[in-house]
Amino acid sequence: MRTQVAIIGAGPSGLLLGQLLHSYGIDAVILERKDPDYVLSRIRAGVLEQGMVGLLEEAGVAARLHQEALVHDGFEIAFSGKRNRIDLKGATGGKVVTVYGQTEVTRDLMEARKTAGLTTIYDAADVTLHDFDGEAPKVRWTKDGVSHEITCDFIAGCDGFHGVSRQSAPASSLQTFERVYPFGWLGVLSDTPPVSHELIYVNHTRGFALCSMRSAHRSRYYVQCPLSDDVAEWSDARFWDELKSRLDPETAHKLVTGPAIEKSIAPLRSFVAEPMRFGRLFLAGDAAHIVPPTGAKGLNLAASDIYYLSRAMREFYGEKSSAGIDAYSANALRRVWKAERFSWWMTSMLHRFPDSDAFSQRIQTAELDYLISSQAALTSLAENYVGLPY
Amino acid sequence: MRTQVAIIGAGPSGLLLGQLLHSYGIDAVILERKDPDYVLSRIRAGVLEQGMVGLLEEAGVAARLHQEALVHDGFEIAFSGKRNRIDLKGATGGKVVTVYGQTEVTRDLMEARKTAGLTTIYDAADVTLHDFDGEAPKVRWTKDGVSHEITCDFIAGCDGFHGVSRQSAPASSLQTFERVYPFGWLGVLSDTPPVSHELIYVNHTRGFALCSMRSAHRSRYYVQCPLSDDVAEWSDARFWDELKSRLDPETAHKLVTGPAIEKSIAPLRSFVAEPMRFGRLFLAGDAAHIVPPTGAKGLNLAASDIYYLSRAMREFYGEKSSAGIDAYSANALRRVWKAERFSWWMTSMLHRFPDSDAFSQRIQTAELDYLISSQAALTSLAENYVGLPY
Repeated sequence: MRTQVAIIGAGPSGLLLGQLLHSYGIDAVILERKDPDYVLSRIRAGVLEQGMVGLLEEAGVAARLHQEALVHDGFEIAFSGKRNRIDLKGATGGKVVTVYGQTEVTRDLMEARKTAGLTTIYDAADVTLHDFDGEAPKVRWTKDGVSHEITCDFIAGCDGFHGVSRQSAPASSLQTFERVYPFGWLGVLSDTPPVSHELIYVNHTRGFALCSMRSAHRSRYYVQCPLSDDVAEWSDARFWDELKSRLDPETAHKLVTGPAIEKSIAPLRSFVAEPMRFGRLFLAGDAAHIVPPTGAKGLNLAASDIYYLSRAMREFYGEKSSAGIDAYSANALRRVWKAERFSWWMTSMLHRFPDSDAFSQRIQTAELDYLISSQAALTSLAENYVGLPY
Repeated sequence: MRTQVAIIGAGPSGLLLGQLLHSYGIDAVILERKDPDYVLSRIRAGVLEQGMVGLLEEAGVAARLHQEALVHDGFEIAFSGKRNRIDLKGATGGKVVTVYGQTEVTRDLMEARKTAGLTTIYDAADVTLHDFDGEAPKVRWTKDGVSHEITCDFIAGCDGFHGVSRQSAPASSLQTFERVYPFGWLGVLSDTPPVSHELIYVNHTRGFALCSMRSAHRSRYYVQCPLSDDVAEWSDARFWDELKSRLDPETAHKLVTGPAIEKSIAPLRSFVAEPMRFGRLFLAGDAAHIVPPTGAKGLNLAASDIYYLSRAMREFYGEKSSAGIDAYSANALRRVWKAERFSWWMTSMLHRFPDSDAFSQRIQTAELDYLISSQAALTSLAENYVGLPY
C-alpha cells in the first residue's frame, strides 16, 4: 500500500487533517486502534474557538454545527459568592466561542469522510512507525491477525497522549514538560436545561465548579474533587448537593437536577513534548500536549496544530516548498505554550489547592478582584479564551 | 503633652502624613526611634507613581522633585537575549513614572517639616502604645533617660516592618500573610552614567538583573543572588562581571562601571497584616505590608495608605464623619492586595527560582512571550506599573 500521508488516530485531529488534505487533493489513510463506536463514546470538551470553527468550515463539515451549536458572546466567573460576566464579544472586537460537543465534531468529520469514500482503517492493532528519518516512512499494523504495511511521504501522529506516535520518537531528541495537579474534575452529563445560558466558572472555598452545557437541553457540570475519590462514591444526589453548595444561592436555587447519563472523574495535567517533528513524523494534538480542561483549550489546540500541519503539507505538495514543514514544530509550539500558560493560569486562579498557604489564597482572590476591575486584564483573558490568532 | 495625631516613625510615610495633616490644620507629633542621619542613610526605591507625585505636590514638597527627577515614559524587559520596550505612556493614555530616590523624598519632607516648625522627636526610645481601643490613646517613650507621654486622638503606625506599631496590635485580631523568596537582590550604587535612560528588567538563565538609576550620573544596578551570599564575597569586579553576563552583548558593551558607593544584599519578602486598623491605631506602609522590590511598589503603597488615612482624618475633623476611618482598612487593603499580586507576579516572571522545574521555566518564558505579543497584556502590566487608581 502507498499513500501520501499516513495519519495515526481517527479522533478529531486526525479526521480534520484527513478532510483538509482531501480538499487539497492530498491522499491520506487513517489508522485507528479502536472501532468507530469507541471513538464516539469519548465525552470531551465542547467549547470551540472561532479559528477552529473556520477550519471545520474549510473542511466542509460545519453545516450541522451552524444549525445546532450555541454561540456564546461571554461567560461568567463567580467568586466570593458573586457572578461576574466576561464580555468576550465586546472585549475582543466581535469574537465569540461556539458550544458544540467534541463528539459531535467527530461524528460530522466521520460522516464527511465516509461520504467522500476515504480510507479509515479501524481496529488496527500493533501499529509501528518506521523509517521516518528518511523519505519513505512506513507504518505497519495487524488487523484480524494479518500484517499490513503502508509506505508514505509523511506520518501525522494524531493518536493522543497514550498513542504510539510520540513513543516512536527517538528518546534522545525528545524533551517533555509536565505538571500534574493535585485534584480531578468529577463531571456529570444530564438531560436537564442548563442553569444559565452561558458557562459559569466558580471559585469557591469548597473547590472549583463549572456549569456548562452541550445544548439547550443537555447540561454538563463539574466539581473539583480529590484524585483519590472513586466515582462510585458519588451518587447523583451527592453530586448535586456538592455542586449547589459551591454556587451562589440564586444560581443554586435555579439549578435543575436529574439523572446523570455520564459520570466520571478526570485528572488534570499539563504536558508538552518538544519538538513536534521528527524527520517525517509530525505530532499533533494530545499526542504532543495536554492541557487541564479549565479554559477549554485541548481540542482547540489540536485544531491549531492541524492548521499549521495542513498548510505545511499543502505548501509541500503544491509549491514544492518544505518551509512550512520545517517551521511546523516552532510555529505550533509557540501557540501551544501560550495556551499551556493560559490553561495553567485559569486552573491556578480558579481551583483550591490542598497545599496552598494563606498568602497564595489571598493572591488568588486579588487576581480575581483585579481581573474584574480592569478592562485590560479582562481583554487579555478574553483574547485567550476566544483563541489567540494562528 | 497632647496632640491630635501621634505618628510613629519619621520615614516617608510618617513625614508625608504629617505634612498632609498640617495642610488640613490637623496637629501631629512624629516620634522616631533613630536620628535624622540614620533615616536619610537608608537607600531604598526610586520609582514614584503619578499618584504619589500628586500627594507630594499636595503636601507642597514637590519643587525639587520637578527640577531634578527623571520622568520615564516606559521601561524595558529583556529575556532570551532581547530587550522589549513597555510603552507606559502609550498604554495608559498618558501616565508615566518618576525616578527620584526615596532618600530625596525623605529629605524634602524633612526640610518642609523643619520649615513649618513642626515637632519631630528623634531618638525616642522604648516607644509603647496604649489605650487605642478607647478615645484617648497614649504613646509613651523615653529620651535621654527621661520618660514622656503624649495623649492623642489617633495613632498612625508608620514605623516599618520591625516597628512597635504592628507588634502592639492585639495578636488575636491580627492575621498575617507571608511569602519569603529563595533569593536576594545584591544592589550596587555607583556614580556612573546609567547604561540606558530607562530601567531594564532582565530575565536571564543566570538570574534576574535590573539596570536602574537615581539620576543621569548615578546608577543603581541589581543582580539576583543566593540568600546565603555574603556581600563581602562580592568585589566590585565580580559584581560588574556578573551583571554583564546577564545583559545582552550590546547592553553589556555599553555598561560603564565604577566603584560601588553602596553595596548590599536585600532579601525579598511578601507580607500583609490584616486588618490595618485596631480601634484608634492605624498601620500604614511597611508596618502593614512588604512587597518584593520587583515593580517598585513598596514606597508607592505606603503613599496610597497615607492617601486613604489623610483623607479619613480630614473627614473626621472637618466633617465630623468617621466613615473614612471606618473604611480605611478595607480601602487600603483592596489596593495593597492588588499591588501584592502585581509584585509577586513580576517577581515570579522575572527571577530564576532554584526549585523551579522545566515546566515552570517554560511557563515563565511563555508568559513573557505572550506579554510582549499582546496589547491587552502590555496594558495590564502598564496600568499596574504606573499605579492603579486610589
